[in-house]
Amino acid sequence: MPAHDYHRFMQAAYQQALKSYKEGGLPIGAVMVEHNHVIGEGHNRRVQDGDPTAHGEMDCIRRVGRRSDYHAVTLFTTLSPCMMCAGRVVQFGIPQVVIGENQSFPGNIDFLRAHGVEVVLLNDPQCEALMRTFILEKPVLWNEDIAGRKSV
Amino acid sequence: MPAHDYHRFMQAAYQQALKSYKEGGLPIGAVMVEHNHVIGEGHNRRVQDGDPTAHGEMDCIRRVGRRSDYHAVTLFTTLSPCMMCAGRVVQFGIPQVVIGENQSFPGNIDFLRAHGVEVVLLNDPQCEALMRTFILEKPVLWNEDIAGRKSV
Repeated sequence: MPAHDYHRFMQAAYQQALKSYKEGGLPIGAVMVEHNHVIGEGHNRRVQDGDPTAHGEMDCIRRVGRRSDYHAVTLFTTLSPCMMCAGRVVQFGIPQVVIGENQSFPGNIDFLRAHGVEVVLLNDPQCEALMRTFILEKPVLWNEDIAGRKSV
Repeated sequence: MPAHDYHRFMQAAYQQALKSYKEGGLPIGAVMVEHNHVIGEGHNRRVQDGDPTAHGEMDCIRRVGRRSDYHAVTLFTTLSPCMMCAGRVVQFGIPQVVIGENQSFPGNIDFLRAHGVEVVLLNDPQCEALMRTFILEKPVLWNEDIAGRKSV
């Protein structure tokens, strides 16, 4: 995938994050891409649905629906994945993850790479600024979503 | 927790698995226990809800709802956790997991223990028999639920 497309699809994930932020939720978004098309998108829904498992990546995967094969997909996420979401990627054989930023939350990039996942880290300033704004505004909510664990 | 209680709560998780089996779904169930009381239960809902993220443990955690602290809970699951669910346990600081069986699916017990989770493996013949029956009946569905990966 050319670098131009990384940023284009990350912009779609960012729009999901921004939508969630405007709804009062956690501003973390994700899209799934296959054969250069977005096949699903989602965002964190802890606040919106009262669902502690609905991280951005999980909501996106859920909305894509049932499938037996993820070998041709790329998962875009505005924020580095927590251990649940990284585990999901590895268990289900998602081969590539493109991450907006890992400054707000280091997540589990080493774990992904150790299990053969190709990780592209964009260091996207827009993704990082939105998370920084949110964390300053709602630190308790942010802490709840990661159970206070920045790394496992 | 005395051994008697392990088996009592695993029976509740098994009833969730059996319910899912009777609905045509994957027979994997879970309950969450805190201060010797069941605070939530769930089962795999891939078939029932078309949700590929709804493993038994995830459905149970979702139904318990939002909380910031899992330090006093025990998660009971009829089957050894996949990498997504094991990652969830570690990210959210669930300190103890009681597992019905790991013969149908080895799961990620070593990962859990390496991250400080206390794992109790019951080798429950009822849990194992139900999974064996299901896998013989619906091998394609079973393979879909773990993306063909017995270990990561």
